[in-house]
This record gives sequence, structure tokens and C-alpha cells, in this order.
Amino acid sequence: MIIPFNIPYQSKNAQHYIKKAMESKRYAGNNRFTEKCIHFLEQKYGLKNIYFTSSCTTAMEMGALLAGLQHGDEVIMPSYTFSSTANSVALRGAKPIFCEISPETMNIDVKMIESLITERTKMIVPIDYAGIPCDIQSIKKLSDKYNLMIMQDAAQSFHSFHNSGKPCGAESLLTAFSFHETKNINCGEGGALIINDDSLIERANFLQEKGTDRSLVLKGVKSKYSWVDLGSSFLLSDILASILLCQFEEVDKIVKKREVITKSYIELFSQYSKKGYLKIPKIPNGSIINHHAFFVIFDTAKNQEDFLSLLKKKEIYPYIGYMPLHSSIMGQRFGYKPSDLPITQDFASRIVRMPFYYSLQGEALDYCINGVDSVLRKIYD
Amino acid sequence: MIIPFNIPYQSKNAQHYIKKAMESKRYAGNNRFTEKCIHFLEQKYGLKNIYFTSSCTTAMEMGALLAGLQHGDEVIMPSYTFSSTANSVALRGAKPIFCEISPETMNIDVKMIESLITERTKMIVPIDYAGIPCDIQSIKKLSDKYNLMIMQDAAQSFHSFHNSGKPCGAESLLTAFSFHETKNINCGEGGALIINDDSLIERANFLQEKGTDRSLVLKGVKSKYSWVDLGSSFLLSDILASILLCQFEEVDKIVKKREVITKSYIELFSQYSKKGYLKIPKIPNGSIINHHAFFVIFDTAKNQEDFLSLLKKKEIYPYIGYMPLHSSIMGQRFGYKPSDLPITQDFASRIVRMPFYYSLQGEALDYCINGVDSVLRKIYD
Repeated sequence: MIIPFNIPYQSKNAQHYIKKAMESKRYAGNNRFTEKCIHFLEQKYGLKNIYFTSSCTTAMEMGALLAGLQHGDEVIMPSYTFSSTANSVALRGAKPIFCEISPETMNIDVKMIESLITERTKMIVPIDYAGIPCDIQSIKKLSDKYNLMIMQDAAQSFHSFHNSGKPCGAESLLTAFSFHETKNINCGEGGALIINDDSLIERANFLQEKGTDRSLVLKGVKSKYSWVDLGSSFLLSDILASILLCQFEEVDKIVKKREVITKSYIELFSQYSKKGYLKIPKIPNGSIINHHAFFVIFDTAKNQEDFLSLLKKKEIYPYIGYMPLHSSIMGQRFGYKPSDLPITQDFASRIVRMPFYYSLQGEALDYCINGVDSVLRKIYD
Repeated sequence: MIIPFNIPYQSKNAQHYIKKAMESKRYAGNNRFTEKCIHFLEQKYGLKNIYFTSSCTTAMEMGALLAGLQHGDEVIMPSYTFSSTANSVALRGAKPIFCEISPETMNIDVKMIESLITERTKMIVPIDYAGIPCDIQSIKKLSDKYNLMIMQDAAQSFHSFHNSGKPCGAESLLTAFSFHETKNINCGEGGALIINDDSLIERANFLQEKGTDRSLVLKGVKSKYSWVDLGSSFLLSDILASILLCQFEEVDKIVKKREVITKSYIELFSQYSKKGYLKIPKIPNGSIINHHAFFVIFDTAKNQEDFLSLLKKKEIYPYIGYMPLHSSIMGQRFGYKPSDLPITQDFASRIVRMPFYYSLQGEALDYCINGVDSVLRKIYD
């Protein structure tokens, strides 16, 4: 049996929905199925001002443009994240300022943020690693105090809830979701930007439509649209939106099935974490996770490597974490050296993300858990 | 009968191909169907270094990044184009320098380009309006003389051929195609960038994959990928690539059917163009067009407006042309005023694009041609 890292979930209704999208003959961005997706997220999560985009990466880029980031601006973010978090602001000429992580969640260390704030700081970009919501309350206190914007990289946390009770997407000025093949809800490549400030909406409409005021033409305000702003094609093909819609409609079922996997991993790894051999994530009190992922932090990089190679022999494929951005080639170009963020550097070398997908159930889950169990015994017993 | 401006072509094989893409369980960008699309374009057109993207807009942005455009650089392009042509370079901080058009094709006026070249000029961005290839030979002479890059906005000209005999995509350093819902070959939202310089490929691979060297990991050169450059998610969901593939396989059939529409329009409008009432496009000698579109330039803006409103009563929907960029809000922000490019300003106010789509055949085409004929008689007889 092979246990890959990911198998994307597919709804039984997908073919039917795709057919309907194509039969409509209108399946560029922002057509019928995108509208249905927007309506669904509004109704289910109380989110508003939802823009579906071609990826989470481009959603972040739309957010950075909308925020008006400029050359010389500074943006605080964890170094332990994906390149797109940093590129979205670097593409505007802003400088990513890298912050340490809190090892319990691998999310940004909120205690360190304040020390990084300068007169140039314009924005904080927390991420929700493995679907665990960042400590948004503490971050909002800082953003209020220093008048900073927040753009939440929620690539992994669609359908997770902050300890405020609000869903990811409802707390930050800007939030970006991913619907990439690797995510709970997926269409190959896709994303969305949520904008919690109505005063930004007119410009967001311009940005999404290649910097034109086409939105005003659709509303009947103008008769011809023209070039009014920077912008891109921040749009999702309605065919892909149709695939998302049928998965949105099944999101509770999807997350519930995934919860079983989290529980199995906790049961297994807890025995070792209690002995101090490894660490497992600590979900912040009151937060609700979407069971997107499960990570384990080994005591040594050597044991992490052994774990991966021994499981490979059993055709079980966990995955490594991010290579920290601050110590990458680009991070060094921004003036960082690996030792600047020792916690990030250390934990990134010891983390493993476990196989995690909807159909990891029954026999497959048993095989995976048993395989991992035997490898852990080999390493630690 | 209603004759809309566009109905997207759909292949009978689409559902089958989509199903195969989804069953593969690997349908993020650059998977099996994207590879097949690339292979098809290589074989059929001799194109190389083909990158499928989420849109033509993002293909142009990838090109602008790859070209290394920077703040202060100048890029010469026609004002008569879509906002994305200009935004792709403006997003990098470069300044669009707007050039007049040649009314016979509505493409960039090559005779004017040289007068716009300064020490800051880095690139020329011609477009292929209505699928008519730009005069690439003359543009290449200039780019050679002044050491400029060429990025061809071939949004409308996939499967058109320059008078060199080479297909659009084979002549310029960079070429961007669109597979938007409105194009001959379409998947809702989609595009591609063609790169005719092998020395740019390594970096192109980085840019496409969010500025990471993931391509080196896939090749086995590195074991872990990291952040090495700017970049975005310049990728097309493989589900959309599967839709493109079945249309690529039918491209000759599609273009042949569309040719009938061009011929019908020429037959009808020629009677009026001969009398000097209106102008129809003049295809450059030796060029082969893809029958993407057909435009008519009326003698007066008044007659253009009457034409549109009279046809609306018959439920026949031609479309207006571009609002010139130089006289738009953004154009004015770049220092232009409407009178700077009087030919563009004038012709843009008199142009109409006729309904044009694969299924405009038989009875529908007859209804359209007869309706247009009666409106032209009303206006001119």
C-alpha cells in the first residue's frame, strides 16, 4: 500500500457542476458559479467582500496592491512560511521583515512583533500554519496601537475558527485563502481574497478586472469601461468555481472525516511527546481547526531524517516543512543570515508534515498509523 | 433570434478530458494535460519554452518580470490595446509610452516607433489586434538596431501566422497568448507565455513557481526547494489545460469554420467600403489570420452609434473597440492627453467589432448578415 502525502478530495457532483458551468457558455471569472461560491461563504461564515482569484498567491498580490504597499515599506511576517507570502509584498517593492515563530503552532511569535515595528512598518502578515489560526487578537492589538494593516495568509485555514469564535477571514483587514490541489477544498489552482473594509471595495473591483472600471459598466453607472488603475486578472475561471462550489457544500462532511485523521495521529504521537521525544501542535484554547494538516517536531534533525527515510521504505510519504525564507537566497538578498532567526532555523530542520487527505480512512489509515508506529519504535524504543 | 457578440467554442471531448484530468488526482499547474498542451504546441507550431498561465494578463506580467523591467524604464506600445498590456509593465514601475496605430490593421504604427525611442526604452510591446499579426519584421529591425526586447501581446492571435511564415509566438523574444472565454481556443480564464531565449528559462522556471527553485528539485538537482527570486503562481490548473487540449486538437476545424464568417462579413461590408463609407481590415500580404474577429471602421462616430443601436433592436450585438489607454484616467496620470494620439482617438470612436463565434453558422449567420445588411442600407442608402 502507498500512502502519499496528499490526494485531493473530489466531490461526486463535480462532473455535473462542471457540465452546468460549461453549458452556461459564460465561464470566465465572476460568473454564475463564482457568485454561488461567494453567496455560500457569505451565508455559512458571515464573510463579506469575497474575491475569487486564480490562486492564494495572486490573492495576496491583490491584497498588497490594494493596501497600497510601496517601495521602502516594511511588512512583518514569519520567516517560516511559503515564498508567496513574501513575494506578494516584495513585488510591490516592500521589504519583508522576518519574525520568529512560536514552536507550539509554528505561527508568528506575537511577542516578538513589537520589537520589529519601525516608522516604515505598514503591515503585518501572519499565517495560519497547518490550519491553526494565528493569535489574531494579540496581532490586532498591535495593529491598532501602531496603525498597521493586517493581511492574513490563510492559505491553509479555510474553515478554521479563531478563539474569538469568528472564522478565519473575518478578523483581518485582508485574508487570502488557497484552494490549491493540496488543500481541504480544491480545484487545482485557486484562491480568494476577503476584504473587511467596505471603503476598499471600489478599488478592489478595479484591481480584479485588470485595472478597469468594468464593474461600473456592469452596474450601469458607466457605458464604456476604461483603464483607471493598476491591476491584474485576479479572477477564477467559473469552471473551477463550479468544482469549488460542490466541495463547499460538503465542507462539514470533509472536515469531520479529516478530524478522524488528526485524532489518530494525536493518539499515536502523544505517547512519544509525553516522553519528550517529539512535539505535536498545541491548538490555542478556543480555536477550532479545519484538520488540514498534522505536523510533528522531532527532537533532532537526525531523527527527523531517519523517520522520513524509514517511512519511505514502507511507501508512506510525510513531507518536510518550509525552508525558512530569511535564510534562503532571497532572504539573504534582503540582508538576513541564517542565525538571525535561530528558532525558525532549528524547528524547520526538525519538522515533518504527515500524510493527510480525505480518503486516508479505514485500511489506509490503519496502514499509515501502524507503519509510523513501528518506525517510531525503531527510532525511540 | 439573438446573435450575441461571443459564444465560447466547446469540444465534445471536454467532459471526457476533464474527467481524465481529475481522475489523475494531480491537477495543479504543470501536470499531465499541461504537458500534453505544451507538446502539442511544440509539434504543431514549432514553438518552444511554453509556460501555461492563469491568463494572458499574468503571462504578460511574467514576461515583464522575466525581462527585468524596472522603475524608470520605458516600454513602447500602442494606446489602442487592453489595459493589461500597459499594466504588465506599469506593475514593474516601467512607463508605457503610447504609439499611434496603423488604421488598416489597428496595430502599432511601426513608422512612429523610432521617434519614441529614448535611452530609457527597454522594450516594444506590439499587439495583434483582431488576430492580425503585427508587422514583426519592421519591429525586429528596430529592436535589433536599438537593442530592445520585444514582448508580443498575442492575446488574440493564437494560430495566426506572420508574413515570414512563422506562427505568432515564434518571432518575438516573449509572446503572450490568451485562452479567455472570448478567444478561439478557450477555458474561461487561461494564457501562455512563449520564451524565445533559452538563457531565460532557468529564471522563468523560478518565476512561474512562486520564485522558488522547485524546478531543480523536480529535475533531481536539489533535494529541497527554497525562495530564490520574485515570482508568482503563473500556473494553469490542469483541469483547464485538459479543456484546452481537446480544443487544440480541433484547431484547424475551428479556424476553418470561422473563416466562413470572415468571408461573409467581407462580402457584405466590401460593398460599403468600396463606396468609401467604411473601412474593413487589410490583412498584410503573406500573413495568415486565425479568423478571431472582424472589425469595421465607420466614416463617422454617429454612424457607428446608429449601427450599434439599430442592430440592438434586431438582437444582434456587435461590440465597441478599446477605449484608448493614453486618454484614460491612467494614461493621463502618465502625462498623456487625448489629443496626443489623434488617429487612435479618432478610429477608436468609429470602430465596431462584429459578432464572431464558431457556432455563428447556417441560419444564425444568415440572420446576422441579413440584419446587418438592412441596417447598413438604412444608414447609407
